[in-house]
Amino acid sequence: MTGDQRTPVTVIGLGDMGRALAGAFLDGGHPTTVWNRTASRAEALAARGATTAATAAEAVAASPLTVVCLLDHDAVREVLGPVAGDLRGRTLVNLTNGTPRQARENAGWAAEHGADYVDGGIMAVPPMIGRPEALVLYSGSPTAFAAHERTLGALGTATHLGTDPGLAALYDLALLSAMYGMFGGFFHALALTRSEKIPAAEFTPLVVSWLGAMMTSLPEMARAVDSGDHPATGSNLGMQAAAYVNLLDASREQGVATGLVEPMRALLHRGVAAGHGGDDLSRLVELLRTNP
Amino acid sequence: MTGDQRTPVTVIGLGDMGRALAGAFLDGGHPTTVWNRTASRAEALAARGATTAATAAEAVAASPLTVVCLLDHDAVREVLGPVAGDLRGRTLVNLTNGTPRQARENAGWAAEHGADYVDGGIMAVPPMIGRPEALVLYSGSPTAFAAHERTLGALGTATHLGTDPGLAALYDLALLSAMYGMFGGFFHALALTRSEKIPAAEFTPLVVSWLGAMMTSLPEMARAVDSGDHPATGSNLGMQAAAYVNLLDASREQGVATGLVEPMRALLHRGVAAGHGGDDLSRLVELLRTNP
Repeated sequence: MTGDQRTPVTVIGLGDMGRALAGAFLDGGHPTTVWNRTASRAEALAARGATTAATAAEAVAASPLTVVCLLDHDAVREVLGPVAGDLRGRTLVNLTNGTPRQARENAGWAAEHGADYVDGGIMAVPPMIGRPEALVLYSGSPTAFAAHERTLGALGTATHLGTDPGLAALYDLALLSAMYGMFGGFFHALALTRSEKIPAAEFTPLVVSWLGAMMTSLPEMARAVDSGDHPATGSNLGMQAAAYVNLLDASREQGVATGLVEPMRALLHRGVAAGHGGDDLSRLVELLRTNP
Repeated sequence: MTGDQRTPVTVIGLGDMGRALAGAFLDGGHPTTVWNRTASRAEALAARGATTAATAAEAVAASPLTVVCLLDHDAVREVLGPVAGDLRGRTLVNLTNGTPRQARENAGWAAEHGADYVDGGIMAVPPMIGRPEALVLYSGSPTAFAAHERTLGALGTATHLGTDPGLAALYDLALLSAMYGMFGGFFHALALTRSEKIPAAEFTPLVVSWLGAMMTSLPEMARAVDSGDHPATGSNLGMQAAAYVNLLDASREQGVATGLVEPMRALLHRGVAAGHGGDDLSRLVELLRTNP
């Protein structure tokens, strides 16, 4: 690359996210080639200057860097399997949702075919792509990442987590589990307050402020988890297990399903049964291991 | 009350929280009478100037305002039952953990005996009591609350939610369910990252920043819940249900129990089965009602 020339990029998979990715590369001035099984998905991008490839092989051949964003792991193997030879000497960045095991499998497959592999997890929804708030986590080949870091920066804030290709998927899913936990707790809270006709908009500012306050305890819990020493700072695990019954009773009394809050009750009771009643809640993390 | 005289207060129940409450009243200059079944719990408070009552009846008779903080609802009925007559013409503020139904039951009982009743929920751990960050939610008799608002302010920030005595417990439990949801999600996230030996202290800043970003969507979800209209803003319910399987697969592959994350999977699938796949995640709130 010399002067203002931007690296050509190929985007395979044009769902909502794939179209957002291709659009961000176009906005960044990258010659962008796109391919999708259903070709009509490429039309709006073509109107914005993207080159539409006739086949996946042609798409891969068009650029040193191919970014893939498909439905799932099976779709990735199905689409890329036949074009393995075309990937030789190029870099494949896979932003398809998947597991660490799938990412490692893909990396092994890419290595067999002489391609550099970087896996990624997008911590954003399509409308955020191209803005610094869109966090994209990467892992795998550090040299391939370094070579294309500036190009990938067109999608959002690019962070490389390490050489193990599974790390991006692991971090992605870990962050999602934290998010779904928060959303699930929020939904249960709204179901409780709605049972007394309290408007969600009236209650939610209190939740946001409360969760913000409670979030300040996460770093301390993290230190406890790392050290294995869990001194109770406020209410200990046993006290919380005892008080938790009110949450279940009240939910039943108010006609709210207990499904979302039941596992924490079970976990608290396992913590007490294991002799950790005097410890901080953070002790529960180690009870989540199924292969201790 | 004239001049600098502070309202005398009685505190019944001297567990960690009760002792913190009595201590805050003493710090606020209130003549404070305390009683606990196990009298030794009162010693340190007596050294700080509290009057130790010999019986619960004597304690109640000492002040126009009695604050109760016991183990649970049964303990409240057991301790207060015999002193019902002594409460006549006085105000009872019950800060014991409980359900909305229990609060309403207590309010009815207090009314029968000519006492004003205010129920409360403490959104703080004992070390926070007496500081403005300690939020204490109240509901029940508005006149009794107004009469003692300044006194109760010694405990933290006092907020009256309404005349229905069940509201404080309802808000309290709803906020706790939101907190436990967030903690549960965080614990699962840490279990996942620990399975690859990633230090919790290294991963947690990313979680805090991510949850902070995701929290900004709660007010919009609340508006959707109030309106009953749930347009998908980013990834819709169906897409999230499909991607969620990776979270379960990865957890199993990494040796992490799926108990905490399983109920959200089930709920997402119920949402899709009910025809809400194109909606925002906020649609799930209405699926939590068991008596629709």
